[in-house]
Amino acid sequence: MSAPRVLVTVEQPLLRRIATPEALARLERLAESVTFNDADRAWDAAAVRERIGGMTAVLASWGSCTYDERLLDAAPDLEVICYAAGTIRSVAPPAVFERGVRVTHAADFIALGVAEHTLTVVLALLRCTGDFDAAMRAGRWRDIGPAVDRELYGKRYGIVGASKVGRRLIPLLRPFDVEVVVADPYLTASDAQRLGVSKLELPNLMRTSDVISIHAPVLPETHHMIDAGMLALIKDDAVLVNNARSALIDTDALVAELAKERFDCALDVFDEEPLPPDHPLMGMRRVLLTPHVAGLTPERRSRLMDAMLDELERHANGQPLRHEVTIDQLESMA
Amino acid sequence: MSAPRVLVTVEQPLLRRIATPEALARLERLAESVTFNDADRAWDAAAVRERIGGMTAVLASWGSCTYDERLLDAAPDLEVICYAAGTIRSVAPPAVFERGVRVTHAADFIALGVAEHTLTVVLALLRCTGDFDAAMRAGRWRDIGPAVDRELYGKRYGIVGASKVGRRLIPLLRPFDVEVVVADPYLTASDAQRLGVSKLELPNLMRTSDVISIHAPVLPETHHMIDAGMLALIKDDAVLVNNARSALIDTDALVAELAKERFDCALDVFDEEPLPPDHPLMGMRRVLLTPHVAGLTPERRSRLMDAMLDELERHANGQPLRHEVTIDQLESMA
Repeated sequence: MSAPRVLVTVEQPLLRRIATPEALARLERLAESVTFNDADRAWDAAAVRERIGGMTAVLASWGSCTYDERLLDAAPDLEVICYAAGTIRSVAPPAVFERGVRVTHAADFIALGVAEHTLTVVLALLRCTGDFDAAMRAGRWRDIGPAVDRELYGKRYGIVGASKVGRRLIPLLRPFDVEVVVADPYLTASDAQRLGVSKLELPNLMRTSDVISIHAPVLPETHHMIDAGMLALIKDDAVLVNNARSALIDTDALVAELAKERFDCALDVFDEEPLPPDHPLMGMRRVLLTPHVAGLTPERRSRLMDAMLDELERHANGQPLRHEVTIDQLESMA
Repeated sequence: MSAPRVLVTVEQPLLRRIATPEALARLERLAESVTFNDADRAWDAAAVRERIGGMTAVLASWGSCTYDERLLDAAPDLEVICYAAGTIRSVAPPAVFERGVRVTHAADFIALGVAEHTLTVVLALLRCTGDFDAAMRAGRWRDIGPAVDRELYGKRYGIVGASKVGRRLIPLLRPFDVEVVVADPYLTASDAQRLGVSKLELPNLMRTSDVISIHAPVLPETHHMIDAGMLALIKDDAVLVNNARSALIDTDALVAELAKERFDCALDVFDEEPLPPDHPLMGMRRVLLTPHVAGLTPERRSRLMDAMLDELERHANGQPLRHEVTIDQLESMA
């Protein structure tokens, strides 16, 4: 097969964070030609349009422009878009697929990190590690206020959204002998059986789970899917995690519910980031805040390009892509 | 088989913490007779000696006296000691086994909790959840000082001591694709192979592991096994966990090493408990402190007696015990 002619639309500062020097050297080796973006920000559509003629592959990441009809008209040789990030909908509209351009992305790779982060905050809240540490340092040996030290073993774990993250999470939970229940309108009965989970309607999941984590995409029908009514269903001393997208939960309703200190909550995503210092979440107990870091530790971020170069190499060799996005998947995807 | 005549040496306040009302009702049902300790502390040897004649079973827990020759002389009918706690050496010396008294304990049950706690603090330190939360609440979005956000996936995990806890931990680590290495002079090559781990000498484990957790018993040869020399071998940005016994680590050497903020450390056990407020550990960064809670959440503690009643019922029915301690195991056990 032929070596690709690659347009790297990622700006240099970001490129240095998502690619090791070895990855960049590998890119040069496997490509016929590579055109880098030397600017301080990702190229917009006009800048890409100027340069994409004759290119067969695009390497893009956060800040990418949309590959719409007009841009695709300028890219007659384009075969594949490798997106070194997760959320693909704004980058690759249906037109991309309709023209036969293949699309691959690093969502699986990021999902591993989010799944690990999910188990991390679930265990930290269940076992009250932060509260115990703070109590000890404040001279209170075991007095952790409203928090309750409890276990994951044998509990019911509710996954909202059988997404890539949701599916990556299941094997991490298995050794704890939890009963995994999943709410997801796209999950088929045979898929649920294969995953070893029970399918539940969302209200039932909210009402009966000891731990609930949200891994759904933001779509019109999932916007504020966790509203005041859903939050009121959560059991006392349960754990709620959102490290997906803040729009999935009605933040005002969440703040009102969390003020009761009935259950624990870990949040990694916020309507405004950085979270404003005067936000009511900042002063709350039984709340664990992390600054949108679930998917990507620095070590994982620096390897994003590796995942996309693997895909580019497979494409160049005529092999199936491992993380290809199809137009059918697009509808239910982030 | 015959119903046991049971002496419960546990004082009432502790009994209420380790047994549910249902467990106590079950005990009454399955025993021919039950004698409870109505005092505020566990019976000492003299108090047990007075009452043990004719008894066939003892239910003991923390604070139990030692079943030495003199006490055993007063207990000619004693068949089984059910110890609703973990560390058995001071309760059941070799004389117990030599007289054919069977011994069972709840160490397996507690080990599950310690294994969960171990993964909890490892993930919390790797993913910096406490540091991120504190930074956000202090108005610093992602500035976590000397801490480093990193992952468990694909790392080398060193287990010091293939004890019950060490063995329970291995399945929790498997989904993270870590390479598990174990230092334990009692671990045979075939055992290591069966567990899917590599056996390493302790210095090699300390030098090469990204995460190290200590799960060894306190024996003359393990006292301060982690000394200044061993601590100096630990890699930068590694994680060290001790939720076993404080005597396994030289605390002065540990404090000196942790002051360098080279790596993270979670401690659940201390030379003096509660840890004195002016102890240097109290002010340290990259250190996660928990107040000796690894093995037993309140929910697990309240079920300790269930585990021992299961054993007592098996004994009464002539079935094999599931958690019996043998004299051969005693030497390498906590």
